[in-house]
Amino acid sequence: MSEVRLDPPLELSLSLGEAMFTQRAMRRLKPDPIPESQLEILLNAASKAPNGGNMQPARFLAVRDRARVEAFGELYREAWWAKRRDEGRPWTRREDIPADSVFRMAALLADEIRHAPVVVLAFGIYPGMGHSVLPAMQNLMLAARALGIGSTLTTLHPQVMERVYALFGVPEKVEFHGCIPLGYPRGRFGPTPRLKSSETTYIDAWSQPPPW
Amino acid sequence: MSEVRLDPPLELSLSLGEAMFTQRAMRRLKPDPIPESQLEILLNAASKAPNGGNMQPARFLAVRDRARVEAFGELYREAWWAKRRDEGRPWTRREDIPADSVFRMAALLADEIRHAPVVVLAFGIYPGMGHSVLPAMQNLMLAARALGIGSTLTTLHPQVMERVYALFGVPEKVEFHGCIPLGYPRGRFGPTPRLKSSETTYIDAWSQPPPW
Repeated sequence: MSEVRLDPPLELSLSLGEAMFTQRAMRRLKPDPIPESQLEILLNAASKAPNGGNMQPARFLAVRDRARVEAFGELYREAWWAKRRDEGRPWTRREDIPADSVFRMAALLADEIRHAPVVVLAFGIYPGMGHSVLPAMQNLMLAARALGIGSTLTTLHPQVMERVYALFGVPEKVEFHGCIPLGYPRGRFGPTPRLKSSETTYIDAWSQPPPW
Repeated sequence: MSEVRLDPPLELSLSLGEAMFTQRAMRRLKPDPIPESQLEILLNAASKAPNGGNMQPARFLAVRDRARVEAFGELYREAWWAKRRDEGRPWTRREDIPADSVFRMAALLADEIRHAPVVVLAFGIYPGMGHSVLPAMQNLMLAARALGIGSTLTTLHPQVMERVYALFGVPEKVEFHGCIPLGYPRGRFGPTPRLKSSETTYIDAWSQPPPW
């Protein structure tokens, strides 16, 4: 294993503010392929994230082989509905979900993820390393935003994990942290509705609001 | 609670690539205070991160009251050494640690964190929401990089958690995800040594290397 110090790629010249403040979850993706050079930039960006003691436990499996993305898509859809069942939601078909619910769009992704040009699965090769994997996933998604590639961070469900590991030959001791479908968006990037930071931030003690 | 769509702040005009590729962990911090306007930008950036179903469970406690930072610093140092003990490290004082070890610098931070102008603690108000808190922590640290503020993502140890919660009045059901000391760096930002992404990325199946 060898380490490198890379210069920032010119393709990531978008301002940090623009990238972060317009990073919408993109769930409606075009099937158009993502050039390999762009995929490499995303993975380079992921590799630069902070991680505990520079142990660099994060590993990324970028799936683009059509048959494997299709097979994964089936498992993803099953996992998505298993999560809704666990939550006690009364829906059994996408059409049951209120049109204005964020779940409606998420259910569409569950149906369509099999058409995504790339799905990236993120793992940690040591246990309990979410702190050293999730920041890298955010780097990957911010870099995707800069390249005009849509993404969203999603998870799976215990019901399908064994089959997902078997599908890709993932060793048992490796820990799964989430998956990111990638594709050029059918929608547009834009400002995200979020709570004001004055409602999510406390100063010096819990519940003590900031001065802004 | 009210949601807002914010424009990207001009202060975050650094390119995404530069921010991500020069985001070193900064453990040697100056005690100089961080202006409130800069702190607000960091927390606004954190609030824009992706999160599951836009439930926005992340909460940030920015500690800058000197007495509380000092008290937290004592607990942080105890936690840091408790982690080393759990790992079976033979060190009991900072001077025992090899000078070229990343732990040497981390031990320095454990001694000095009580002088940091701000320490941000990150929580999730629902259980098991690391996916919706850690990307926000990475946003906060990238924004800090853009403002020339040093940071590093650190954790605590079960041995001190009850006292940390008591110190800040954090409700028991709230989950702690990590802490980020902030301050102007005594060192310089620069490229980080990381594994090549060709060594951390697989294509279509585990262990199958990418073409780059």
